[in-house]
Amino acid sequence: MNLSELPLTAFIDPQGKNHQEIEQLASQVLDLILSHLTTAINHSPLPEIGDFTDFVSIPENSISESILLEKLNTIITRSTNAANPGYMGHMDSMPTTISILAELVAAALNNNMLSVEMSPILSRLEFNLIKQFAQLFGWGETSGGVMASGGTLANLQALTVARNRAFNSHTLGIWNQTQQPVLLASEVAHTSLQKAAMLLGLGTSAVIPVKTNINSQIEIEDLKRQI
Amino acid sequence: MNLSELPLTAFIDPQGKNHQEIEQLASQVLDLILSHLTTAINHSPLPEIGDFTDFVSIPENSISESILLEKLNTIITRSTNAANPGYMGHMDSMPTTISILAELVAAALNNNMLSVEMSPILSRLEFNLIKQFAQLFGWGETSGGVMASGGTLANLQALTVARNRAFNSHTLGIWNQTQQPVLLASEVAHTSLQKAAMLLGLGTSAVIPVKTNINSQIEIEDLKRQI
Repeated sequence: MNLSELPLTAFIDPQGKNHQEIEQLASQVLDLILSHLTTAINHSPLPEIGDFTDFVSIPENSISESILLEKLNTIITRSTNAANPGYMGHMDSMPTTISILAELVAAALNNNMLSVEMSPILSRLEFNLIKQFAQLFGWGETSGGVMASGGTLANLQALTVARNRAFNSHTLGIWNQTQQPVLLASEVAHTSLQKAAMLLGLGTSAVIPVKTNINSQIEIEDLKRQI
Repeated sequence: MNLSELPLTAFIDPQGKNHQEIEQLASQVLDLILSHLTTAINHSPLPEIGDFTDFVSIPENSISESILLEKLNTIITRSTNAANPGYMGHMDSMPTTISILAELVAAALNNNMLSVEMSPILSRLEFNLIKQFAQLFGWGETSGGVMASGGTLANLQALTVARNRAFNSHTLGIWNQTQQPVLLASEVAHTSLQKAAMLLGLGTSAVIPVKTNINSQIEIEDLKRQI
């Protein structure tokens, strides 16, 4: 890569030499987003995507800012428009304003939650916030946790800990059992349980479905029978 | 929750009724970030974090925008400052400008990469881009893949597929083997391999280290011996 061919705005200069150009680019991107979302009622929740077979090709050199913004606008206007009031909110709702802006901040800081050295304030924030969440659930002073990027990873993490505790499998594995380890779950539980069972080496068949009533509540009699 | 107590800017109004207020808030957040990053040379890579035992507490009602921005500025100025030229780039480098702005766009659109219905253009973009990446690696017309959020998840995914193919373990699991399934890896390989082996039910002990030379290259003789 020839560094002299990088656009002036490729990185934010730590001495502010390209402050104005960065600000202009950022404002233009923000404008594209806000123009779209503040008129979301006029766009279909599911727009026509049209043909874009050749929409992306990795170029040898950087493209101009105007072409970049044009392509970005195509992406914005042809994405699922969750901001339209006719959109039902499944699976993903319109995010709050502050969560959108928080993503911007998190991306700009690029701190790594691996350790407090890499994210001195954000790691402590996580610890502190989860403690409070846990207490809101009534789990007491010594409770805690970590943020996961979603329910699937959270279920995987919980079931991993449970498997390792029950079978001492962290170092030694689960490959030498005489019976299939299983877990019981509501028949309407999320498929992330089967995915986790597959990953953990139990197999998707290890999730034993428990019957539910018309309100999707577990039928205790069936649970007792299955145990 | 009393909806009337939500701040005016909580969500972007799809008819643009709070366009001005949203724009103002977004501009202020952008200003905080840019003010910091364009003067990054003046701030230590690892700032003093000070005391913030009481920094976060989940409030009953929304706080004012000025307090919010003040707290946000505290987070920004007390985070690891990867933009300082004295920062070595380990583990996380300063992101490119466009990747920061792309995170803003991705957060605002909140499309779900689960299916093309939920992310009509972004799912196709992923498919198209990965195809091109794969071809840059010389993997031919029929190659493809998915984006993962990092090397740890990518390694987990690859090893999951490998285990399931080798042991037919997707549905039935890996719990009834007579020998421990193992994998051979360079002794300097990333710890995500041990993590994956643990998750997959092989146990961390399933990763057999292969000796390396002074250039961190695998010693082929040791590899042959271990096999």
